[in-house]
Formats: sequence, C-alpha cells, structure tokens
Amino acid sequence: MNYCSLCGAEIGVRVPEGDNRPRHVCGACGTIHYQNPKVVVGCIPEWGDQILLCRRAIEPRLGFWTLPAGFMERGETTQDGAARETFEEAQARVDVIDLYALFNLPHIDQVYMLFRSRLLDLNFGPGEESLEVRLFDEAEIPWDEIAFPVVRETLKLYFADRKAGGYPLRSGDITRSPEEPRRYRVRIYGDR
Amino acid sequence: MNYCSLCGAEIGVRVPEGDNRPRHVCGACGTIHYQNPKVVVGCIPEWGDQILLCRRAIEPRLGFWTLPAGFMERGETTQDGAARETFEEAQARVDVIDLYALFNLPHIDQVYMLFRSRLLDLNFGPGEESLEVRLFDEAEIPWDEIAFPVVRETLKLYFADRKAGGYPLRSGDITRSPEEPRRYRVRIYGDR
Repeated sequence: MNYCSLCGAEIGVRVPEGDNRPRHVCGACGTIHYQNPKVVVGCIPEWGDQILLCRRAIEPRLGFWTLPAGFMERGETTQDGAARETFEEAQARVDVIDLYALFNLPHIDQVYMLFRSRLLDLNFGPGEESLEVRLFDEAEIPWDEIAFPVVRETLKLYFADRKAGGYPLRSGDITRSPEEPRRYRVRIYGDR
Repeated sequence: MNYCSLCGAEIGVRVPEGDNRPRHVCGACGTIHYQNPKVVVGCIPEWGDQILLCRRAIEPRLGFWTLPAGFMERGETTQDGAARETFEEAQARVDVIDLYALFNLPHIDQVYMLFRSRLLDLNFGPGEESLEVRLFDEAEIPWDEIAFPVVRETLKLYFADRKAGGYPLRSGDITRSPEEPRRYRVRIYGDR
C-alpha cells in the first residue's frame, strides 16, 4: 500500500493514537487504512452418502479436486456466500445445513468456513472455474489429488465424524512456515 | 475508493473479465481492489455462573454494556483474536472453549464470531476502551443497556441454552434496513 485510496496522497506506516499496532495512515487526510483477514466460505454438498467435489480449472492447483468455496462478498451472509460459491463452481443448488469446519490460516490471513449442505437435485456441472464436477463415495475420494490442506483436513474429519454418527463443529489451524513452504502444520481444537 | 493504493492512479468501477460483479479497478496498473466483509471476534467470558461484560468508553454506544469483541487482525486466528480483544478491553485472561455464536450482519459487512471462554482468574479491569468491567449473574444482566443487537441476541440464546443444558453452535442474521435505521430484524437458524 503506497497511496491513499481516498485522496491519492502518500501513505506512511505508524501506530495511530489509541492503537497498539502499525497501520497504513495517509499523511495528508489522516485516513487509517486497516487491513483484515478475509473469509472463505464453501460447502460440503451431500447427496445420500456421496459428496460433491470440483476439479479446478484455474491456478493455484489447477487439475486438483476441492470443495466449492471462495471469498465471501460484501452484502451477503456466510451461508448465502457458501451456497453462491457452490452454484458458481458446480452449478449446484444446495440447502445449507450448518457450519461444520472453521479453519484459521493465519499465514495467509484467511478464515475458512465450510458448511454441510444438502444437494437439491443432480443438475450440476462445471462452472467457469471447474474442469469437472462429480459425486464421490468415501472410498473414491482422490486423497492424493486434493487441492488444499484445509479441504483434505475437513474431509478427513467429516468422514470420521460420519462413522461416529454426528457432525460437531470442527475447528483448527493450518499454518505454513516460510522456511518450509512445501510442508504445513495442522492443529485440530479439542472436541466440543 | 478513488485512487489506486498501489500506483496512485485513478480508480474506475467495472466488472473484470471472468468476474460477475463490479470491482474497483485501477485504470493505469490494472490492479483489482477487492473489498470483503470483516470478522469481529469476541468472547463470552465465564466465571462459574457469571459472565463478564464491559461498559463502553468509546462511541458508538458509549456507556452501554457489551461482550469484549473487536476486529480480527492479520496474522492471528479467530480464537487468538477473541482472547486478545478480551485482554485489551477487560484486561482479562481466558481459555477459549468453543465457537458459540456466528452472526451475519450483511448491511455493515461484518461477521461476528463469539466464543465461550473460561476466565482464568479475577484479575480483570477496564482497558482503554472500557469504563467499567464486571461479572453478572443472569438476573443482573442490564438488558436495556446492551450496546448492540448481536450481543443481546447472543446473550438471550446463551442463557436459554444454559437452562437447556448444552451449548450448540448458534447462528443467525441481524439486518437493519436503511428505511428504519432504529429497528433491526433477527433471523436465528434452525437448531443443529
């Protein structure tokens, strides 16, 4: 951030009065430009014992499988955002049931919120960002071709909880250190 | 948003290629400046049967009571953010237990995430943004002096759930229409 988006003057970094951390502050009009984490919302679309996954048509992780999810937009709820992303990526209509997984990815300033949801019909297909969309039995899940750790961890918890007979809210942290960009660390919070 | 925070050139509003909604796009360098909802994280700090509330020392709603909560910061988890806000506003140390309330406030682009938490000791007191911090029995809750609808709705659900003997995740929408700025509408999602 170099220039004030409001007045166009140069931005400096300093701790504003009454605050305790450095912010981007306009040297001319004084506007404080806060930066905050973003919410990624998505669904685990269920059809009987099967769940729907999308094969990505875009980078990162082109060709890999993922749950339909994306950045929450202004003016919507988390539940509506999860359903919208499912429609955009899989042309699928869902009833959102409940929040199932809350994952923090603090190294990239994202919070994932993945909702269990019920597919309303089988009229789905690849949206612009998907190559392919299909239903999977648990035994068919392509574990080695899952796009993101947060999706892999969510699916692992999901199928274990299904065996145990219930879906409590699951929460965890997934972090990646700059020194080891190919490895990630998972912390799952204690059971409810 | 008038100027590009990256290069300082003028910003226009248009739908970028491959997107489906208007964004702020720089006319010179082409950067798309996405705007997304913000997460507000906070705690319901418990001490036996009592919970901790803070009386606000700042606007809006100066002098009214609230749960300790504030904007999630970059580089932290939702749970750590909730504990940090509790320390900043109430100088109180907590163990975060679990997410209890997820509220969407789409008219102001906020998502509230309030966590049940356990006060570690009674060494609390007003932080810079609080006039007063104290523990309340249910019967003492100052219902007419609660700062925000989201806090009032969360506390109502919380005490009802406590009577019922459990704390399932609660989720809802709170919206305010521009035509009736003094009234708000509450939708609580179905039980788990």
